[in-house]
Order: sequence, then structure tokens, then C-alpha cells
Amino acid sequence: MTIIEELKQIVGGDAVLSGKGERMTYERDAYPLEAAQPLATVLPSTTEQVAAIVKLCVKHDIPFTPRGAGTGLAGGTLCPGGVLIGVARMNRVLDIDLRNRRLTAQAGAVNVELTKAVAGDGYLYAPDPSSQGASTIGGNIANNAGGPHTLKYGVTVNHVLALEMVLPDGEIVTLGDKTEDTNGYDLMGLAVGAEGTFGIVTQATLRLVRQTQAVRTLLAVFGTIDDATQTVSDIVAAGIVPAALEMLDGVIIQTVEDAFHYGFPRDAGAVLIIELDGLAAGIDTLAARVRDVCTASGAREVRQASTPQERAKLWAARKKAIGTLGRLAPSCVTQDCVIPRSKLPEVLRAIAGIGAKHNLRIANVFHAGDGNLHPATLFDERDPEQVQRVMAASHDILELCIGMGGTLTGEHGIGVEKRDYMPLLFPAETLRTMSDVRDVFNAAGLCNPGKILPTSHGCSFEFTPRGGAVAV
Amino acid sequence: MTIIEELKQIVGGDAVLSGKGERMTYERDAYPLEAAQPLATVLPSTTEQVAAIVKLCVKHDIPFTPRGAGTGLAGGTLCPGGVLIGVARMNRVLDIDLRNRRLTAQAGAVNVELTKAVAGDGYLYAPDPSSQGASTIGGNIANNAGGPHTLKYGVTVNHVLALEMVLPDGEIVTLGDKTEDTNGYDLMGLAVGAEGTFGIVTQATLRLVRQTQAVRTLLAVFGTIDDATQTVSDIVAAGIVPAALEMLDGVIIQTVEDAFHYGFPRDAGAVLIIELDGLAAGIDTLAARVRDVCTASGAREVRQASTPQERAKLWAARKKAIGTLGRLAPSCVTQDCVIPRSKLPEVLRAIAGIGAKHNLRIANVFHAGDGNLHPATLFDERDPEQVQRVMAASHDILELCIGMGGTLTGEHGIGVEKRDYMPLLFPAETLRTMSDVRDVFNAAGLCNPGKILPTSHGCSFEFTPRGGAVAV
Repeated sequence: MTIIEELKQIVGGDAVLSGKGERMTYERDAYPLEAAQPLATVLPSTTEQVAAIVKLCVKHDIPFTPRGAGTGLAGGTLCPGGVLIGVARMNRVLDIDLRNRRLTAQAGAVNVELTKAVAGDGYLYAPDPSSQGASTIGGNIANNAGGPHTLKYGVTVNHVLALEMVLPDGEIVTLGDKTEDTNGYDLMGLAVGAEGTFGIVTQATLRLVRQTQAVRTLLAVFGTIDDATQTVSDIVAAGIVPAALEMLDGVIIQTVEDAFHYGFPRDAGAVLIIELDGLAAGIDTLAARVRDVCTASGAREVRQASTPQERAKLWAARKKAIGTLGRLAPSCVTQDCVIPRSKLPEVLRAIAGIGAKHNLRIANVFHAGDGNLHPATLFDERDPEQVQRVMAASHDILELCIGMGGTLTGEHGIGVEKRDYMPLLFPAETLRTMSDVRDVFNAAGLCNPGKILPTSHGCSFEFTPRGGAVAV
Repeated sequence: MTIIEELKQIVGGDAVLSGKGERMTYERDAYPLEAAQPLATVLPSTTEQVAAIVKLCVKHDIPFTPRGAGTGLAGGTLCPGGVLIGVARMNRVLDIDLRNRRLTAQAGAVNVELTKAVAGDGYLYAPDPSSQGASTIGGNIANNAGGPHTLKYGVTVNHVLALEMVLPDGEIVTLGDKTEDTNGYDLMGLAVGAEGTFGIVTQATLRLVRQTQAVRTLLAVFGTIDDATQTVSDIVAAGIVPAALEMLDGVIIQTVEDAFHYGFPRDAGAVLIIELDGLAAGIDTLAARVRDVCTASGAREVRQASTPQERAKLWAARKKAIGTLGRLAPSCVTQDCVIPRSKLPEVLRAIAGIGAKHNLRIANVFHAGDGNLHPATLFDERDPEQVQRVMAASHDILELCIGMGGTLTGEHGIGVEKRDYMPLLFPAETLRTMSDVRDVFNAAGLCNPGKILPTSHGCSFEFTPRGGAVAV
């Protein structure tokens, strides 16, 4: 019996995708610069099926990789020649416990569905990546995802209470605890953000947050990026913590406006979306203070969403902004560095310089309040010379951010894209410790190999699977 | 040259305490039921000295244990026959960066001193354990300490950006990053709460929080514990997240009142301290809602602190409450379980039953909003029969809480006290994984042995040090 037949025995014939077209479908995620076809993609429906698939892979010495919705930006779900374990069918909300403010869902549940399940009762699941209409909670956990509201509400790890996980040997374990505490070593905290290299998350118990009583959403319009970034720093320095504080530059204002006709001023150098939430009684006072800071820092105009519908439309435009860049170029690579907030003006100027140096257009739409940049470099992936320039520009951007005291990723992970940059951030000894910790969970190196750590530090795409795999 | 002489060469003669009385001074922390004399206590002044001490211990195969202020409740700093490394002299604030809202301090800096260093500029360090006037940031990190304001602001790990740590082989590393992100595996998150078993924290970069514009502190008085615990659940279910929500029962109201004359009603069954913070404009509306919930849930009376001085006096009484139990008995053991908030009424009743069963007085003062209980059992440690009853009652309380879906510790750690309860909370496989992860950092088992994991899972007090140590 072939491995494909054995997989079909576990999950049924319709849940094993191994045809030529199917393998091509799953050869990449949202990172455009690398592709690698899996041997097969399987779509289990239960935790027990995931465990059986993993045990089968271990028996055959084949690598395996978990996959949510494939919205990851760093190639974390590439699985050359291995078994890609898609959790899309494991998408149910299993339990809602409002009294203790928690919810349990399967790993394939789509982020926005969690909030929909409790919105009627006045609650929400706070982390809101821009991909939330598609991305799964399993993928969010693997990448410790953030979102516009991370500024006030924190990233995924701040909202995970417990995980059910299939370890790389196929054992099913529970990590963490449904009360908000850690006892012993924080293995759950370690698994969040491990990009599926410690095992496959199959189920999560998550914190719920009460909807705030009142929200005010402002749009501040600036002539220059410099004025906008300085305003970000000034708002936070004034002691105000907005629920969200996002920036869009002039390039992306144009494409977003072309796509959604929200009413952004086409001649602006940059806009800030500033959302405030809290009690109804104090919120207009706070909004007035924010307006004053914006005006003092050079805002040309400060608008306010006047209805919930207008607010929803503004956020839809923001969250789908990256997609609108397709109007300018067939491909874009989005970086994800984080820098100290106080360095925003300086770093944005330097990124513009990097674009000029490599003759590439770079658009900026990002979580300004967190200092979490998303410079999006536009190009045509069919032109190898452009690809070389894009990679050179990405390299310059990452080195710039690290030089400014920043990091490689805020929310989208290291994946394959940034693993070889890890030595810029960590000394060899720390990388060895990380590798040793991974070996505790993943000694055979079959569970999502080639991610996070530089290739010299462990299993990578040099890995040669049995079974006639195609690695691109 | 003896080890003591070698230690003196590293830190100077006045920083090595190895006389009989000195060893007795350091034979215990705030856990009253076990004591163990170190070979010596050393008080280094620099990270390099800590590294040199650790290397010396490794050379001589002697265990070593870090110690902050010794306020830990679970015996996490007992160091039988080993070298106790006290960080009390490493107490400086090294850097304050308000623009990026962070502060760097040495491990021996006392918690409250951090807030004092930035209060004039309108900031604070949020985690506020009741021991904050004495406990060090190093000890807070080792135990992932909480405090009354944990309910709204989170525990220590939510406020640590980066750590400087001396690994168990004497190497000095930096974990985490000064921007608020994790890249690669979260070794820093793993080290926080590891009770010094992964190395010795020597320096930490911490988040600062802006002081809130307005605070309201209410005292709600109840005839019964039942009414008070039900009110806790009702406040949170109403969608209100107080900054703090604390409960004191009738026993402790008496002793606190005897000690501080705050004006607590001596005939009350329980009181809640409810603190609200936020914008000035909305806060009185919110306070009125909380009053309404309290009254609807049976509060006899709801008072409000009318001046900052009155608020400070109320918090001082709360934070020093455990100490006032010395008026009733020479010793007390304070438990630290966490239960789902919705089970508070049921668990408090059961704890009263456990007190009656073992003929012991149990007082309750705790972080009610988090479900983090601190039942304090009063006894005389000179009476072995009482000690036996106390240990039996502690056992019953821990089993009760775990049976209710709770955990062993909210903020004070596992230490030696609760290590043998870990199998009630975790399957053997998970404990083995924890032990394997510890071995990555602490393979020789010399760094704070015998803590966190059950004694069968690693180095423990069976460890026989060289050098004529006395283990009690």
C-alpha cells in the first residue's frame, strides 16, 4: 500500500489531495518568492485523524507541516515532498463559556467566526489580523498573530488559555490551563509562535473580551509621511493608548481609493486611522485631545466616522489594503519588522531611500502605534532581475530595522523567508539553545522542517524525503 | 583554597556570608514549613560576578540558587548545602526611556522603586505584588508575580521585554527584545516563571504604563462571604473590568482593623475592595454602576475613598493584611490556587469546610477578580501535630481547587511546596517534556535543584553536595 493509500484509509478518499493540480495549489502560501510542492495535502476532520497522520509520517520518515488558510507571509507552510496537514475542515466552535469569558474552538475555525459566535452576547475575540476573514485560529497561534487592535489588546499569546496539540510523535497533549495561569514551565507560551515546529495545534481555548461601550474612529490627513509618523509618537507620548493606530502612505491611499471609493484624500502624503474605545461618558473628550495632538503635529484635516457603517467601511478598506496593490504590480513582498516607535520618522525616510536605491516602488500600510512596519515592495515575479532587486531591498530593510534596535517580525513569523537573518538578531549560542529546545519536541526534525532557524541549525530543505517527492 | 575563599576572591570578603548565624538567616524564605541551610550566601554587585560565582559552583559541582528578597511563599529559594546568590546589592535602575515606555533595572531592584523612579513623569510599573515594598524584580520575574492590579494589567510576563541572564554554565545572555515582540522561540517567556531553574536573571527591561487620569476606590461591605463572592462574579459578568477586585473575609478584617484602624466594619462577613481607573469623564458613571451591582447582590453598604490619602491607607491595609495574622497565631501557610471565577462561592464554602474538618482557622484575603485564592491557614509551627493538620488541610485545598478546574499557583510559584502536586495537574508525559526543556538550560541540574518538578523527575534534595553542607 502506498502512503497516499494509507492516508486515504485515515481520512477518506476525498480528504487526500495528491493530483498534479492539487499539489500545485498547495505549493505556496502568501509568500511569493518560494514554492515547494507537497507529496499530498490531507484534510483531517478530527484530532485523532491528525494524530494518525503524524504517526504514519513518522513511520515513513516523511516530513509534515500544518496549514491553516495559507495567508502567512513568510513561507511557514511550505512542505516540499511532505504531507501538508490542512486543518480547514476542523472549523467548529466547541464550547462558549461567557461567565468565565472563554471559548474553545478547533484549529481550523476562521478568526472572524469566533467573534461572530459571541458578538450577540456583547463579546469578541480581540486579536484581529487583517486576514481575519480567512485566516484560522491555528495559523494565528502558529504565528502569534497581531492586528490593528494589538496596540491596546495584545497579540494572540495574550489571549490563548490552553491548547490541544498533536506532538511530533503523534501523541495528543493539552498545554496551558483554562484559568489564566501558568503552572510549571510555560510550554503553551512556547508553542504559540513556534510556527508549527513543536507540533500541530488542533484545538484552542481562548479569552473573550467584552465589547467596549463606545468607539470613535478618526482619520487624520497629512501632507507628508514625516508629519504622520511624528504624530504617532506624539499621541503615545501624550499618554493616550488608542485601540488602534494605523498608517497608510500616499501610494496605498491611491490604490485603496481606486478599489473601495471610501473617500480618502488622493493628494495626501499619509493618513492615520486612530480608533479610541472605552466608556461613552469620556470618549468625546479623549477624541478631542487626539484631534488637538494631530493638528498640533501638522494634520491638514481630522475626520471622524459618523456611523457604525462608515467605521466598518473604513476598516474594510484598511484590512484589504495590501490586496489593492495588485492594481499596481502583479506581486508584492510585505515585510514585517518592528522598530522602536520613536524611530518611525527616521526609518520611513530610510525605507524610501532603499526603494530609490533599488528602483522599486515601496508602499507602506502598517500598525504605526506598535512600530510594526509592513513595507510592501511591488514587482513582477516573472522578471528574475526584478526578483533579485526585491530580495536586495528586503535585505536592506531588515538590516535597517535591526540596526535601529528592531526585530524581524511582528506578527507573520520567520518561516523560510527570514530564517537566515536570525543570526543578525541572535548570537550563535542563543540559536543553538532554540534548536535544542525544538529538539525536545521535535527530535526527528520531521515536524515542519526548515523553518525559523537558519539552515545550518537543523533540518531544512536539504532534507530528502522518501516517496518520490517533488521539491521546487 | 576553600570554596568560601574562592567566593571571597570574586565578590570581596564582606559579600560572603557563611557563619553559623548567617547560614541560619538564609535557611528559609516566606514558606514556613521547610528550612535548609546554604553553604554560603554571596551578594554579588555585578553580572560578571554572578557569572564567576556560577562558574565556580559548576567547577566544584555545588548547587546554586538565586534569591531576591526571600518573600516567596513556596520555598523556591531554599538552597541546601549550596551557594545562595542574593541579588540585593544589584538594585540600580540603569535606564529610563519614556518615549518608548520602558525601563531597565538590575534584578535586585525593589518593585516599588521602579514606579518611584518614573512616577514624577506620570508612569508606573504595573505589576504590584503585595510584597512590592520588599520583593525584587528578579524574584517577581522568577515567580511571574501578580498583584491586585493583575486583573486589568496582567502579570509580570506581560510587562517584561528583555532579560539579561546568567545561564547555568556561567554564560551571560540576553533573551527577548526591547521592542514588544518575539522572534524565533520565546525563550524569554519560558524563563519568566521558571523560578530560577533556567539561570539567574541579572537585569530586566520592563514596560512602563501611563498613570490613569482618574481612580475610584470602593469598599463594599457584605454580611456573608457568599454575597461577596457572588458579587465578584456579577461585576465581571456585567462587562466591567475593574483595575482591582479584592476580597477580605471576616477573620482578616478583624486583624487588619486591629493593626491599622482603617475603619473596616468589624461585624462584616466580607468586604470587597473595587478599584476603577480610566478617564475622568466617565469614571463616576462606572462607579455608580458598580455600586448598583453591589447593592443588587446584597451589599450592606458601599463606601468610596474620598482622598488619595484614604485610598493609599486602604491599599496599605490590604497589602499588609497577611502580616496582621501574626496577631492570631505565630505562623500561617498561604495557598495560591486559581479557580474559575464562577466557582468562587462554592470553593469558599468548601474551604471553610476543610478548616472545620481539620480544626484549623483559615482566613481569606485574595485577588477575587482573577479567582486567585490565598487561603491562609493559622497554626503554631512549634506543635508537630498542628503542622501535620496544616499539611493535610493544604493538601485538601489544593485537591479541591484542581478538582474545580483550577491550578496550583497564581503568582507565588511551585517551589518545593507544591512540586509533588504537579502530577495532579499534568500527565507524566508533560512533566517529562518540562524536565527535558529544563535540561536544555540546566543539564547538570545544579541551578536551583529540587524546585517545580516532582522529585522523581529530576535533581532534588536527594542531591548530595560536596563541601560538608547541612541540609535540614
